[in-house]
Amino acid sequence: MHKNDIYHFEYAPLLIVISGPAGVGKDSLLKRLQEREDDFHFVVTATDRPPRPGEIHGVDYFFVSTEEFLSMKEQDDLLEQAIVYGQHKGIPKRQVRRALESGKDVVMRIDVQGATTIRKIVPDAVTIFLTAPSEKEQEQRLRERGGDSPLQLEERIRTAQEEMNAMHTFDYVVVNRHHQLDEAVNQVLAIIEAEHCRVKPRKATL
Amino acid sequence: MHKNDIYHFEYAPLLIVISGPAGVGKDSLLKRLQEREDDFHFVVTATDRPPRPGEIHGVDYFFVSTEEFLSMKEQDDLLEQAIVYGQHKGIPKRQVRRALESGKDVVMRIDVQGATTIRKIVPDAVTIFLTAPSEKEQEQRLRERGGDSPLQLEERIRTAQEEMNAMHTFDYVVVNRHHQLDEAVNQVLAIIEAEHCRVKPRKATL
Repeated sequence: MHKNDIYHFEYAPLLIVISGPAGVGKDSLLKRLQEREDDFHFVVTATDRPPRPGEIHGVDYFFVSTEEFLSMKEQDDLLEQAIVYGQHKGIPKRQVRRALESGKDVVMRIDVQGATTIRKIVPDAVTIFLTAPSEKEQEQRLRERGGDSPLQLEERIRTAQEEMNAMHTFDYVVVNRHHQLDEAVNQVLAIIEAEHCRVKPRKATL
Repeated sequence: MHKNDIYHFEYAPLLIVISGPAGVGKDSLLKRLQEREDDFHFVVTATDRPPRPGEIHGVDYFFVSTEEFLSMKEQDDLLEQAIVYGQHKGIPKRQVRRALESGKDVVMRIDVQGATTIRKIVPDAVTIFLTAPSEKEQEQRLRERGGDSPLQLEERIRTAQEEMNAMHTFDYVVVNRHHQLDEAVNQVLAIIEAEHCRVKPRKATL
């Protein structure tokens, strides 16, 4: 090694998977993260469910028709896809691959079931489980979110309880405390920074 | 689980080992870390070498006589001890154990050889390798530090080069860039925060 040489440290863009039960605040966390940090590529999920008030096409989701969604699936352009409460959700594969190739860290929000699929396809993904601090608060957040029928709400609450059991399959857990969203965001940023300091970096490849 | 129950997340204090070649800035980094963060227990190493200008007994080191040092060794009160450039250095075991028992994260500065020993005794230690950005800068820092004879300096430079090869045995690498000490401190703090978010926490036990 010549004396002027800069030491070589391996660097690889990360695939960061943020998951957790419904109602735990994944969307709010991602939004705040996006406001604070624009160096990441935030994956935009495709879905055939109708937009909720305030949701923007191409930002919150790619809102597509069921026909369009099934066509993406046929063309093998979905990294992961699932039917959640009767509606399709899927992650466009090319979008993730291109972002990683450009050297950007990719941040992906996905339900717990989907995270399991992603981990199988990309074992080096960094998986973060977002959770409420207690079962009571978890349930309350689902109630307050609205937009569900009593039967749907009951199902969501039961599913959320079950999904807590999947926590042990994740790398990290971040507790999203009431009115402390920035603390949770700080922890996610710390996890990403620490992962980049690993002597043996994880390599997300698709 | 009762609805009011707060989810239980495992928490364990960490043993953080900061190492790297001589001259890389371990002492400066530890000092800045200590200024910015007083929740950690910073291990005070015992040594029989004379204090350098400005060094304070009980803060920078426990400066002891060679007789006192050897007596600690006999009483098995040293977690790790080594002869570095003909002088003894050792880490008082009880100090580390008590700090961990109090629930505090313990931060330890140690030479590369010593870090290997610590890893054997405490496999769950979080090990951070601090490095200069280049071989040229590494060498320059050793020259600027002063206090060494030409022969000692030559030996330090050669040792530092060899120690770079041990980097792959560490968990994390942090580059200490010129005039960017706070960036390196931020990375160390991010690593500690991320480690506390691990679903399966490391457990430092002695």
